[in-house]
Amino acid sequence: MNPRNPKKDLVGIENLSVDEINQYLDLADNFLEVLARPIPIVPSLRGKTILTLFFEASTRTQISFSIAAKRLSADVVNFSQATSSVKKGETLLDTARNIEAMKVDGVVVRHSAPGAAKFLGEHLDAFVVNAGDGGHEHPTQALLDLMTMRRHFGSFKKLNVLIIGDISHSRVARSNIFGLKTLGARVAICAPPTFIPVEMKSMGVDVFYNLDEVIRDFDVIMALRIQLERQQGGLFPSVREYRTLYGLTRERVKRMKPKSMIMHPGPTNRGVEIDPDVADGERSLILEQVKNGVALRMAVLFIHAGGKIE
Amino acid sequence: MNPRNPKKDLVGIENLSVDEINQYLDLADNFLEVLARPIPIVPSLRGKTILTLFFEASTRTQISFSIAAKRLSADVVNFSQATSSVKKGETLLDTARNIEAMKVDGVVVRHSAPGAAKFLGEHLDAFVVNAGDGGHEHPTQALLDLMTMRRHFGSFKKLNVLIIGDISHSRVARSNIFGLKTLGARVAICAPPTFIPVEMKSMGVDVFYNLDEVIRDFDVIMALRIQLERQQGGLFPSVREYRTLYGLTRERVKRMKPKSMIMHPGPTNRGVEIDPDVADGERSLILEQVKNGVALRMAVLFIHAGGKIE
Amino acid sequence: MNPRNPKKDLVGIENLSVDEINQYLDLADNFLEVLARPIPIVPSLRGKTILTLFFEASTRTQISFSIAAKRLSADVVNFSQATSSVKKGETLLDTARNIEAMKVDGVVVRHSAPGAAKFLGEHLDAFVVNAGDGGHEHPTQALLDLMTMRRHFGSFKKLNVLIIGDISHSRVARSNIFGLKTLGARVAICAPPTFIPVEMKSMGVDVFYNLDEVIRDFDVIMALRIQLERQQGGLFPSVREYRTLYGLTRERVKRMKPKSMIMHPGPTNRGVEIDPDVADGERSLILEQVKNGVALRMAVLFIHAGGKIE
Repeated sequence: MNPRNPKKDLVGIENLSVDEINQYLDLADNFLEVLARPIPIVPSLRGKTILTLFFEASTRTQISFSIAAKRLSADVVNFSQATSSVKKGETLLDTARNIEAMKVDGVVVRHSAPGAAKFLGEHLDAFVVNAGDGGHEHPTQALLDLMTMRRHFGSFKKLNVLIIGDISHSRVARSNIFGLKTLGARVAICAPPTFIPVEMKSMGVDVFYNLDEVIRDFDVIMALRIQLERQQGGLFPSVREYRTLYGLTRERVKRMKPKSMIMHPGPTNRGVEIDPDVADGERSLILEQVKNGVALRMAVLFIHAGGKIE
Repeated sequence: MNPRNPKKDLVGIENLSVDEINQYLDLADNFLEVLARPIPIVPSLRGKTILTLFFEASTRTQISFSIAAKRLSADVVNFSQATSSVKKGETLLDTARNIEAMKVDGVVVRHSAPGAAKFLGEHLDAFVVNAGDGGHEHPTQALLDLMTMRRHFGSFKKLNVLIIGDISHSRVARSNIFGLKTLGARVAICAPPTFIPVEMKSMGVDVFYNLDEVIRDFDVIMALRIQLERQQGGLFPSVREYRTLYGLTRERVKRMKPKSMIMHPGPTNRGVEIDPDVADGERSLILEQVKNGVALRMAVLFIHAGGKIE
Repeated sequence: MNPRNPKKDLVGIENLSVDEINQYLDLADNFLEVLARPIPIVPSLRGKTILTLFFEASTRTQISFSIAAKRLSADVVNFSQATSSVKKGETLLDTARNIEAMKVDGVVVRHSAPGAAKFLGEHLDAFVVNAGDGGHEHPTQALLDLMTMRRHFGSFKKLNVLIIGDISHSRVARSNIFGLKTLGARVAICAPPTFIPVEMKSMGVDVFYNLDEVIRDFDVIMALRIQLERQQGGLFPSVREYRTLYGLTRERVKRMKPKSMIMHPGPTNRGVEIDPDVADGERSLILEQVKNGVALRMAVLFIHAGGKIE
């Protein structure tokens, strides 16, 4: 199998075609089988060096990419740096160019500035994978979410997905909305009005404010992580109020549609946007998401590194 | 050689049988030979991923486990996190489950809470090795200490071991006492009364307060690291007083039994519980302990990962 | 090819012969060809473990050594520790001895104390490579600079090199001066008088204070990184004043000799000692230096680890 000509970089889901998304998901399904083998390693990227360049801490995502790269036999160099010491766009470029001069083949970048991954990709020969750029996009998270939905429900055609939380600041929500719309799912959001960006309706996304009125209409309910540190701004209700109105409590989940499922990009605030026994319960796909994430990131690295399956 | 059915996890020495302890020590002796080869690597754990999950900083122990895993051809993912950001048992479990969903085979965990390793092991399919859980146990340290004693003295039958220091807070002391008693050594402790937990006599451990009166009676004298930060509580004598009464000074060491040896789990407070030229001197087994530690940790990872020697 | 008997350690350039320097540079040229291969890895150091022991943060240098070691198939263990927690020379030795007992073959050390690498090398069986010891030496930086000059200009015989910046505190300047003088280049420095150490003239180095008067006389102009944090001492002019008198601005660079080139050890303070479009311009060898650095460090590790090219 040879991947069809991909774009050099994976910056976002917004401009991906149905075919491009399916190419990632199909290959990720294959890699999930590789991961189930006694020796879950393929030699595809032997001799390639992948740099994870994280200007925001995210141990889980960095570990997921590291494991994915090692499963492909790539060498991995991990680089974490507080954003505070990176003051100018020039310096981001400078850092990346220097590291590229060390013959790195691909860069997985997380940065607080929207557009950082695109900027890097435009200036580097190495391929760039966006692991989150501010409130803009987090494409591998969305792709692993799409993979998880497709594996569970088989198709997006009649799938109704509800995203709950602070949509305005969520790159996870944005990337998922782009992907779900492209693949033909129906997408809705539910949140306090201050959490909802104005462009939602023009994107074809239904907007709700009252979770209890709509909870039984959806096949997938995706709760976003509440950023507790944003509460100070006044736009955010209290944690107790949020949980009362929007939390996936045990009682509320009982009213979900039969066979519907719950997703969360992690890490969860247990007892805030989701209750512990809901996160660990029968309807939860959360650990599936994490598991699929390694396979999906293998697929992304494989395709953009121009790997070959022997 | 195939290891006999081990327990899934290595949580402590307390419940290990003579056979189980000897199985670790025998295999560690073999791995010490592997480490002396020009290419000290065996393919036993190729394709296995070991996660070191350290909620307390301990560079040496984490490096020792990392090298051990690499010598076995395992992939290693290192994860360090300050305990402060891990507030609830739920979160420890949450972190571990997430990382296990990434298909990790084994977790080496250090945590400030006694019972943390046991708790993890009960909730994970991956095997768990306790690298220190609060004041409870530190089994690989004790096993490498036992290995070092067995290699030097040949047997535990007539071995007299004295442990000096803050026994109350020492997981190293606890684990060593369990192991030494199981293997038939005589164990005694010597410390200020405030450092001695009440259960010592019921455990068959002799208790002394005056080091100079007993120093010539022991084959092994193990000095524990003094936790200087504990001095503020009032239970702790001054550093100068401690050194005067319990420090392994050059003068005091001269009165040790012929052929007796000194051990210390490191890192030493030179000039406090042990003098520099004693730590580096003829009687010191300290670097042997460190060297044996890699082989012993190879044995532990090998046995719990179900490795095969080809 | 078998490297001729090298010294055990690479502590500095000061005492290297012409032959020794050329041996590093020749092998580095070879490794640059290896790095251009589709799979840029050689098995030379399989089974060897290299420890990078950095008591001062320097992500780039540590990554460069890590990649170099991995290209040679060595295992790499990275260790970073703030100097503040290492209070005594004893502890540096203690740390190193412990890690050596874990069967490490080579140690790459950076430390704020001049002489730290030499001290380590004298006490360890493992080979030691100095990655910067205070204001003393930074030999691999100088060797990669020499490699870059030799590749660009072919020879040192008629090469005129000017180093600009805080020579007094620069290990990069010291190591380069030793190497350039040994290889027969003409070396000069240009800086404010407070930046110039007294021994320069006895070392055969020409000293200038006015950059504009001499800029057209040199083949290589090497700008050092200005340590902005040193400004408080009163010896340092303002950033604006420094840039006006000594900065490699676009205007100033136009007056450089035809075919002359610019170097900088990185990371640059863009807009202080060098302007952004100069750093990225046609005369800049900065990214060549970074690229050559991996090959040069491969050569250093290879030679001191006693590697064999099959």
